[in-house]
Amino acid sequence: MNVSILAVGTELLLGQIIDSNSAWMGEELATHGIDSLVQVKVGDNVGRIEAQLRRLLDDADAVIICGGLGPTHDDLTREAIAAVMDAPLVLDEDIAQVIRDMFESRGRRMPENNLRQAMVPTGASVIPQTRGTAPGLICPIDGIDGKVVYAVPGVPHEMRDMMQRAIVPDLVRRSGSTDTIVSRVLRTWGESESGLNERLDHVIAELESAGTPTLAFLASGWEGLKVRLTAKASTTEECAVQLDAWEARLRHELGDLVFGVGDDTMESVVLELCRRRGLSLGLAESVTGGLVGARLTGVPGASDVFRGSVVSYATDLKQTLLGVSPGPVVSGSAARQMAVGARERLGSDIGLSLTGVAGPAEQDGQPVGTLFVGLVGPGFDDVREVRLPGQREQMRQFAVITALGMLRQLLAAA
Amino acid sequence: MNVSILAVGTELLLGQIIDSNSAWMGEELATHGIDSLVQVKVGDNVGRIEAQLRRLLDDADAVIICGGLGPTHDDLTREAIAAVMDAPLVLDEDIAQVIRDMFESRGRRMPENNLRQAMVPTGASVIPQTRGTAPGLICPIDGIDGKVVYAVPGVPHEMRDMMQRAIVPDLVRRSGSTDTIVSRVLRTWGESESGLNERLDHVIAELESAGTPTLAFLASGWEGLKVRLTAKASTTEECAVQLDAWEARLRHELGDLVFGVGDDTMESVVLELCRRRGLSLGLAESVTGGLVGARLTGVPGASDVFRGSVVSYATDLKQTLLGVSPGPVVSGSAARQMAVGARERLGSDIGLSLTGVAGPAEQDGQPVGTLFVGLVGPGFDDVREVRLPGQREQMRQFAVITALGMLRQLLAAA
Repeated sequence: MNVSILAVGTELLLGQIIDSNSAWMGEELATHGIDSLVQVKVGDNVGRIEAQLRRLLDDADAVIICGGLGPTHDDLTREAIAAVMDAPLVLDEDIAQVIRDMFESRGRRMPENNLRQAMVPTGASVIPQTRGTAPGLICPIDGIDGKVVYAVPGVPHEMRDMMQRAIVPDLVRRSGSTDTIVSRVLRTWGESESGLNERLDHVIAELESAGTPTLAFLASGWEGLKVRLTAKASTTEECAVQLDAWEARLRHELGDLVFGVGDDTMESVVLELCRRRGLSLGLAESVTGGLVGARLTGVPGASDVFRGSVVSYATDLKQTLLGVSPGPVVSGSAARQMAVGARERLGSDIGLSLTGVAGPAEQDGQPVGTLFVGLVGPGFDDVREVRLPGQREQMRQFAVITALGMLRQLLAAA
Repeated sequence: MNVSILAVGTELLLGQIIDSNSAWMGEELATHGIDSLVQVKVGDNVGRIEAQLRRLLDDADAVIICGGLGPTHDDLTREAIAAVMDAPLVLDEDIAQVIRDMFESRGRRMPENNLRQAMVPTGASVIPQTRGTAPGLICPIDGIDGKVVYAVPGVPHEMRDMMQRAIVPDLVRRSGSTDTIVSRVLRTWGESESGLNERLDHVIAELESAGTPTLAFLASGWEGLKVRLTAKASTTEECAVQLDAWEARLRHELGDLVFGVGDDTMESVVLELCRRRGLSLGLAESVTGGLVGARLTGVPGASDVFRGSVVSYATDLKQTLLGVSPGPVVSGSAARQMAVGARERLGSDIGLSLTGVAGPAEQDGQPVGTLFVGLVGPGFDDVREVRLPGQREQMRQFAVITALGMLRQLLAAA
């Protein structure tokens, strides 16, 4: 089963919006064992949309068109599909009523052009809208046996909903597969792709001879590497049995490198480890300027654990606010005193501190990339030094995840 | 002049990397008056790359291929171009020597496959590499009069360098245009696109009848709207004269909404305004958890101005660390006391504070989206209340730019 994607919108070609929808769809399709042939972006021009659609259908079993389903005169996807199907566009009274009702419930007058969204090519079936006003479409192409065009809105959450609810199941059914495919992602941090590959060498060989689940590494920049297991079986339960067994195997091989699963983030895991042990957390940030606190407080419910942070960017504040002794502030001794000071001033069980050099210039005789992390809490009192890659922003982002990763290891080991 | 872009890489189709290169190229081309026809992503398969290239050349005057120029067996762009040109690949001894020298200068052994990057189709000319190891290529297509294929590496900074240094100038020359095109971007904040449009109604009409420069609005989410002027004239100097005149006109119409130009950011502008007046800045952050300090310290040289931040996430810390009186902490009174406390505790000339509700639940009887900003400094002592859109992350990001925008207005007016 080969699928191509056509993203519609002049703003995509002009770079005003980056097309992340196609990437998401490609990943979703791959997870379900469906191959992607090409992904094309085209502007809001009905002739060009139609021509691209015809070309893509030459090679692909199915084409998903994303965007161009809205109410304005620039929304031309319906017309292009109708031309390829050689079918008239007809008003679907049910869709029209949903759109009218939506405006009425909000007490707003409905501009007449909204009913463009209720036009459906004869022979197409509708993917009902659940959030926005434009429905999706499933359009069998006459004369091309078994080929099909799907249309979804360009609004990401509407597109994702229709993909998962209607399009992927329809594609799987058309592919004749009776298999269920389920993925599970392990989040790792602290090892390179080639390093993980080496550690898992024999596991990968075993997986390859078993056939399912398959294993893939997905890079996520400074957030580490994801290890994705994708199981194929006749039921969800059988997939879960496979995934449980191989997840346990991977965790055994990778040990502490695995910090979470699925949607876990380093900060959500740290907060959860603190919460379970009833520990509160305070920070002293210098080089990161507030980034660590910003990430922790991005997690709903962080206030259970996170008390606050002293961002002592100016050197004298490290002394006056945190009680650091005079001397170089990019040092292990300063890092430890900052962590102790944070714990005291913020009244937290744990003090975590970061001091380092983000550049452009070196500081205290330490080169760009130097990071000292202080970790003080019940059962630990530790200072670590690391050398991080990158200039300024990259170094700072690595500093955040590095410090949180160190705290996670201490908490998980305790 | 119609250009299409072909991005090469299986990881792009699988969604492991989002193709932001094509968007950047599309914007760069548009700025120079060159139309984008389609943008296609294809996997690392030499047959598919070749087939897509041929199809794109049917309609476009030029095709830019991005990616697939590296040293491994997966890098197949050179082979696909050679097939389309019907020309053999020949080792370019000059390129080979640059690659050998680079490895030698780093004291590393050169794996032999690196010389794949020195293979050039006969008839192509080379865009010398300045940073990475793979050069770019300019490949006239025999038998198709005047059509051309460009190849650039997928590494963003290498691609951008070659686009600006070689490809855009070559395209402009081929288009027969003797015009110079120069753009200038004004950064605005605090008004919607339709609002800006209304304010600039008559200016836009004048620009349209003048023909040059042209004006475009570019949305940048919570960072505001960019207004881009693009001038066309026979010299750079004439373009600058046009842009200066119309920039002045726009600034007159938009007043305080314009916060910067080009690469200015809200935080770089705030730091510069403080620096010019010799003022230091301290923060008290609650709802943003450190985001404001993180953004300010992302700017090199921030330490001239930025002293630090007290992130008082827990309610009691607002009292103990900042001297806020007991009572609701999401309030104008708390915001003002936080700003005063930050100024005192951090020894700064200016105190800026943020307290609000990011959700998921309301707090102190205030709904999600509520933000109070305290601004205390020489000549001002102010509290503002706003209601921001979005849930948690969006609300917090809006809070950062809103508070910095308020401080900018106060400093610019003084």
